[in-house]
Amino acid sequence: MFMIDWPLFALFLATCFTAGSTGAFFGPDEWYERISKPAWTPPNWLFPTAWFTLYLLMSYAATRVALSGHPEMVYALGIWGLQTAFNTLWSPIFFGQHKIGKALVALIGLWASVIAMAISFWRVDMVAGLLLVPYVIWGTYAFALNFSIWRRNPDTPQMAGA
Amino acid sequence: MFMIDWPLFALFLATCFTAGSTGAFFGPDEWYERISKPAWTPPNWLFPTAWFTLYLLMSYAATRVALSGHPEMVYALGIWGLQTAFNTLWSPIFFGQHKIGKALVALIGLWASVIAMAISFWRVDMVAGLLLVPYVIWGTYAFALNFSIWRRNPDTPQMAGA
Repeated sequence: MFMIDWPLFALFLATCFTAGSTGAFFGPDEWYERISKPAWTPPNWLFPTAWFTLYLLMSYAATRVALSGHPEMVYALGIWGLQTAFNTLWSPIFFGQHKIGKALVALIGLWASVIAMAISFWRVDMVAGLLLVPYVIWGTYAFALNFSIWRRNPDTPQMAGA
Repeated sequence: MFMIDWPLFALFLATCFTAGSTGAFFGPDEWYERISKPAWTPPNWLFPTAWFTLYLLMSYAATRVALSGHPEMVYALGIWGLQTAFNTLWSPIFFGQHKIGKALVALIGLWASVIAMAISFWRVDMVAGLLLVPYVIWGTYAFALNFSIWRRNPDTPQMAGA
């Protein structure tokens, strides 16, 4: 039986929404509509829906980890903070600067930190680790999508000012 | 006697540098040189210098908090993650979008989360709280600067595309 600590859950969720707000500030624009994208690019509405779900899952997972009392818990919460920074970073680089290659580097950072977080959460609390599996899958998919767009648009370094 | 946990310190510092990388992606530009700024605006070189110092201090403070074993420690680390998101957020809005008012809102979020973090760190470990005093002062100064620039430039909503 796991009692949820609501203030702590709210704090983690607020962190997610703060990071995710860059998706509202820097979202799909005319440039994004125009560049070459693979056939398996999801419709735009799927992104906020997926992120909302992932934010709920990861906030609950972080709450479980924080209340575990496990000795490795502080490392797990440290990695939580790191993936928060990468999460905030991607949208401004991709949608704000239209720098596909640099966004890919940021996404690799996010992906690596999410995998590290999932492993760390798993070691602290198995359920918390499993709750991050969708985030790992989504991160992998997002990486593949960003990589494909990067390969398809080799000559569009600075279309923002075009 | 406080033994530092270097991997944990490195994790916190990496988080700071990831958040701070937005300052390299979105930094002072021609628009910033042109807009009206108060006489007490610091020279551009001071910003990275100040942030580098603050990042060292806050990473060491977070390491102390994480190793304290204090029952409120998880809330303190949760607020650490929240201020990380706000820290990442400001530069893209201000320098990337040139939206002074929205950047001010993000900065109020950063300021509030830094004050909450300082209080929380203080309760967990007095030294860690004191180590955040420069961050609170810098946040207050940054708020005053952003506020002044916002008042001085009422009619420059979208100079990016001008």
